[in-house]
Amino acid sequence: MGSNNATRETDYSQWYNDIVINADLAEHSDVRGCMVIKPHGYAIWEKMQGALDKMFKATGHVNAYFPLFIPKSYLSKEAAHVEGFAKECAVVTHYRLMNDPNGNGLIVDPDAKLEEELIIRPTSETIIWNTYKKWVQSYRDLPLLINQWANVVRWEMRTRLFLRTTEFLWQEGHTAHATRDEAMDEATQMLDIYATFMEEMLAIPVIKGVKTESERFAGAEETFCVESLMQDGKALQAGTSHFLGQNFAKAFDVKFADKEGKLEHVWATSWGVTTRLIGAMVMTHSDDHGLVLPPKVAPVQVAIIPIYRQPEQLEEISKVALRIKAELEEKGITVKYDDSDKRKPGWKFAEYELKGYPVRLALGPRDIENGTIEVARRDTLEKENLEQTDIANKVEHLLGAIQDNLYQKAVNFRETHTTAVNTFDEFKELLEGEGGFISAHWDGTSETEEKIKTETKATIRCIPLDQVEEEGKCVYSGAPSKGRVLFARAY
Amino acid sequence: MGSNNATRETDYSQWYNDIVINADLAEHSDVRGCMVIKPHGYAIWEKMQGALDKMFKATGHVNAYFPLFIPKSYLSKEAAHVEGFAKECAVVTHYRLMNDPNGNGLIVDPDAKLEEELIIRPTSETIIWNTYKKWVQSYRDLPLLINQWANVVRWEMRTRLFLRTTEFLWQEGHTAHATRDEAMDEATQMLDIYATFMEEMLAIPVIKGVKTESERFAGAEETFCVESLMQDGKALQAGTSHFLGQNFAKAFDVKFADKEGKLEHVWATSWGVTTRLIGAMVMTHSDDHGLVLPPKVAPVQVAIIPIYRQPEQLEEISKVALRIKAELEEKGITVKYDDSDKRKPGWKFAEYELKGYPVRLALGPRDIENGTIEVARRDTLEKENLEQTDIANKVEHLLGAIQDNLYQKAVNFRETHTTAVNTFDEFKELLEGEGGFISAHWDGTSETEEKIKTETKATIRCIPLDQVEEEGKCVYSGAPSKGRVLFARAY
Repeated sequence: MGSNNATRETDYSQWYNDIVINADLAEHSDVRGCMVIKPHGYAIWEKMQGALDKMFKATGHVNAYFPLFIPKSYLSKEAAHVEGFAKECAVVTHYRLMNDPNGNGLIVDPDAKLEEELIIRPTSETIIWNTYKKWVQSYRDLPLLINQWANVVRWEMRTRLFLRTTEFLWQEGHTAHATRDEAMDEATQMLDIYATFMEEMLAIPVIKGVKTESERFAGAEETFCVESLMQDGKALQAGTSHFLGQNFAKAFDVKFADKEGKLEHVWATSWGVTTRLIGAMVMTHSDDHGLVLPPKVAPVQVAIIPIYRQPEQLEEISKVALRIKAELEEKGITVKYDDSDKRKPGWKFAEYELKGYPVRLALGPRDIENGTIEVARRDTLEKENLEQTDIANKVEHLLGAIQDNLYQKAVNFRETHTTAVNTFDEFKELLEGEGGFISAHWDGTSETEEKIKTETKATIRCIPLDQVEEEGKCVYSGAPSKGRVLFARAY
Repeated sequence: MGSNNATRETDYSQWYNDIVINADLAEHSDVRGCMVIKPHGYAIWEKMQGALDKMFKATGHVNAYFPLFIPKSYLSKEAAHVEGFAKECAVVTHYRLMNDPNGNGLIVDPDAKLEEELIIRPTSETIIWNTYKKWVQSYRDLPLLINQWANVVRWEMRTRLFLRTTEFLWQEGHTAHATRDEAMDEATQMLDIYATFMEEMLAIPVIKGVKTESERFAGAEETFCVESLMQDGKALQAGTSHFLGQNFAKAFDVKFADKEGKLEHVWATSWGVTTRLIGAMVMTHSDDHGLVLPPKVAPVQVAIIPIYRQPEQLEEISKVALRIKAELEEKGITVKYDDSDKRKPGWKFAEYELKGYPVRLALGPRDIENGTIEVARRDTLEKENLEQTDIANKVEHLLGAIQDNLYQKAVNFRETHTTAVNTFDEFKELLEGEGGFISAHWDGTSETEEKIKTETKATIRCIPLDQVEEEGKCVYSGAPSKGRVLFARAY
């Protein structure tokens, strides 16, 4: 355990890094750009996986597993796709090591060179569509609604724990459909699932939108996204869902016979979220004291700490603590009773605060006498002494209140940090100041988008799905526009 | 769907392959030695993961995630370890592709060569112990009880679906302890967990034992294993748990200060099971009609199939079927009601048989009239017509009976295929005949073990933990022995 030195005010970037490290979520490994996800961080990922997997299955999806390796030639089959990924690929060229005959230790065996290099998957469209070719012959084989939980590798030059790492964990859905409409419905359905998951589980409010052409996934016809806003006023893309049209079906020649026996190319989607979501959650809710976790994804929701001097006192406290623990667990609440004698209560208080346990209960000898218990909530840092009577209901209620409070706080933050602007001066001024989402008219051209990005580092995060039709003038070019889009600097 | 041509009698190896392919468990990918785990196969893996993960957590373990890549130099730090793995490593040498200036398409960018090559993890001891060095300072930091669910790569020359593939999925536990005894207890505890899991969930009887020196994990001081017997009389190692002594702690200099402040090297274990278990299960229970699954790991336990000619009939049948489905689900039984009109009942019967659904229910118009239902069990292929009354209890009971029957059948097979022999002629004769486990005296030397292997292809599967002390003479050398060990040809 360490303690945070940086605050959001003094150094936001350092503050984030301190929290990830000090709350034991993850750390840098010795392998450039790769992180170790520590047990506390991984337990959060498991909660996320569990919730998402359930939502995927409830909508008819199944899981499968495809190879880590992609033959180099597959990557080239979809033109835009290879353009997007070739420059950041880990390449396997050999399959054996040997002892250097000159005594320089372990070297790559030159005789074990692969005929065709293998790429570590940066995403699996190519290997999966090469497989779907064998699985799809008839309309009876459709739709294919498949998801994969996997690791992927993109050779990033600048990495940050969770937000951008060379290797990361994710899920990638890859679906195949008989019609364009069905594929489009799938892409938007998955966007809705992501939004619901993020808002209800992670307490992160998101804006659903569609990407501009230049921000689209390499190989997609349309990229839908959910965008969130961090406490430093920068946006973060939390998930994407792509309508791939027939691009991959054509690249890999995947056709099906419809009921009349006519051959057609299949329609596709893909969609994914990554361990980046952990970073998003850290940045949305945490404070200068450390990590703050929404109860629904906290690995452990309640910590109970005994405060005692004599072993006899601990015995008395433990009886009550274990009864309360059992009552809470009865309600499906996860609890850790920390009666370890390796650490003092003060150390434990600091530790659970730093690690974001939503509720901390403390029991001392006087509480045992009086039938009371100290209840502290992590989100507001408020403490109160309550009667032990009915404590499980009180804590259950409190956990709900914390979940709601975190979400509402984040919504309020986003609302006060979303500004409609009509001039480029205002636009730039906002970016230099508090940042946030900037709602502005745009002329719809990639040229303007690029110029704004070069001048301000702000990108179009999305064209919101609930965009209001409104006549206006592009904030940059003055050319006519039919609605506002959302700009921001982004992670 | 296909159908099996080979039988166990005519061609066991082809029979196994046919089942894996035709039951839609997995298929070969275009990447040498890598498989695609299809949804039906992956759903079995998910059931296995769920059960094991629960057992790991119940014994205090937590999950984490370590990098896919291992710097080449790490591998060399433990001498036996590198010897064991260097010859089958996938090696990443570059991190970028580029368009060939001579127009030959996509090539590896020579300017993007890594300073130090990265190995795709064949197992994670080295990267993990390099990390533990930072995590362990004091006795307070111990024990570390960490598991990882991950993919690993070993460049195998001869591969078979599930049993031996270049990439496979597994879990690897890596624990660190303050004392030798504690580490040894951990290693045997995990062996017990594996044995319980295999016998109770997978209905695979296993023998717990310890490996001889020559069969030990590269870097272990002791390798414990669970060995099972397949229907062709060959053994299969189903899982291993290693006591690593202080080998990795010394290689990576991991020390802790005990309560008195004295510095000591940490004691270690590692343990793992892989997707190979799916292959073991297929080979233990399946028959010439296709896959047979123990109900506890079957992705779906009961299929209900309506038999009808007219849409009105389907409507009536569906009412009853859905009521029965709900009753079964109430009991935690997983059910698929297949009312799809894309396929005929006959096709569905064949499909669910081939895919190993433990129980199939069929409902036709006459069943609706009579209040009956056809119940077919996959293990014995028996069918009977039952009253619909109390059907959920009957099916629940039947699923339990199937689970027990599969286990008992496998135990019987092993018992009739385990032979104590006292001469090398008998030994060889058995191997050329029905195979199985051969219980024989061995003089305890690697030389004899090696000679027996060369002459017969049989290896010592294990020295059983429940070995009886018994004076005898080595079946090969005639030298004195204190107990029998188990030999077999193995997967």
